[in-house]
Amino acid sequence: MKKSIGPQTLLYPHPVLVIGTYGADGRPNLMTASWGGICCSKPPCVAVSMRKATLTHSNIRANRAFTVNIPSVSHVKEADYVGMASGHDTDKFKAAGLTPVRSEKVNAPYVEDFPLSLECKLIIETEVGSHTQFILDDKGQPLIEKVRPFIYASGGNRSYHAIGDMIAEAFSVGQALKPK
Amino acid sequence: MKKSIGPQTLLYPHPVLVIGTYGADGRPNLMTASWGGICCSKPPCVAVSMRKATLTHSNIRANRAFTVNIPSVSHVKEADYVGMASGHDTDKFKAAGLTPVRSEKVNAPYVEDFPLSLECKLIIETEVGSHTQFILDDKGQPLIEKVRPFIYASGGNRSYHAIGDMIAEAFSVGQALKPK
Repeated sequence: MKKSIGPQTLLYPHPVLVIGTYGADGRPNLMTASWGGICCSKPPCVAVSMRKATLTHSNIRANRAFTVNIPSVSHVKEADYVGMASGHDTDKFKAAGLTPVRSEKVNAPYVEDFPLSLECKLIIETEVGSHTQFILDDKGQPLIEKVRPFIYASGGNRSYHAIGDMIAEAFSVGQALKPK
Repeated sequence: MKKSIGPQTLLYPHPVLVIGTYGADGRPNLMTASWGGICCSKPPCVAVSMRKATLTHSNIRANRAFTVNIPSVSHVKEADYVGMASGHDTDKFKAAGLTPVRSEKVNAPYVEDFPLSLECKLIIETEVGSHTQFILDDKGQPLIEKVRPFIYASGGNRSYHAIGDMIAEAFSVGQALKPK
């Protein structure tokens, strides 16, 4: 029997996703989100959730597009900052020293400095409660080599961690448990 | 300018989530899913996506409940196995040597052997394409200490990794970039 600690948003690890959008004035904006990930293979789709008060929320609804950019460990400071500042009063690309590049596929900027970006179009929008979940078609993704993504560990502490040592090959280590 | 590699389900790292459900015959079943995570804070909700062909898909629709169990690194073999076998022809709890416990809060079994379990009720169901995304209210969560979750790294290789070294405190390291 386990001990119940009540309803909480307690599930980890989370990815660290930096969302790129354009504002109504054409200004590129960023936010850091950890509540998201892949949700479908055909078509390839990602889901991200955010509060309605964020500038990114209104930007996505206006443009029906955004990018999902994966920072490497060398940009942990920038990703953390982008998650704390608000695009309503700050040019986060400028403050973080990051370079916006206009996507050729969707109406959103991606982060040139990060190793991997997904260019996405909005296809589904779900009001869950405090957060709106956006589901987006992924319309193409640049280079993935040597991404070195990192992790947000919520729960008792709030910290970023590198990816640790490989502990096993997936779709392999479990073969030993297959009934004979 | 980045190099485009076309639309793919390419976004990492993923959590490793083991979903517990009951079948129509009352038999407990498990599947391993990496496409999921928190999607709302009020109410606390998680989203998980899976193909319609899975037994877990029909079990969730029948019972409108499931558990999300987080394995520790010591159970990487069991989590991997549960992700490969099918509940249609296998008793995965038995084959993996795991212990099902009936949740007191929802009509689903949790994994006694894993350190953290979320007990969830289905509130939203979204057909995305090949996958259905289920969004669930989280109705309580047992002990989280010393969970030691691990990560599924998709992309070039398919491997499980431990959580690596802490690289920075979240909501702190980025303060240095705040405009003066």
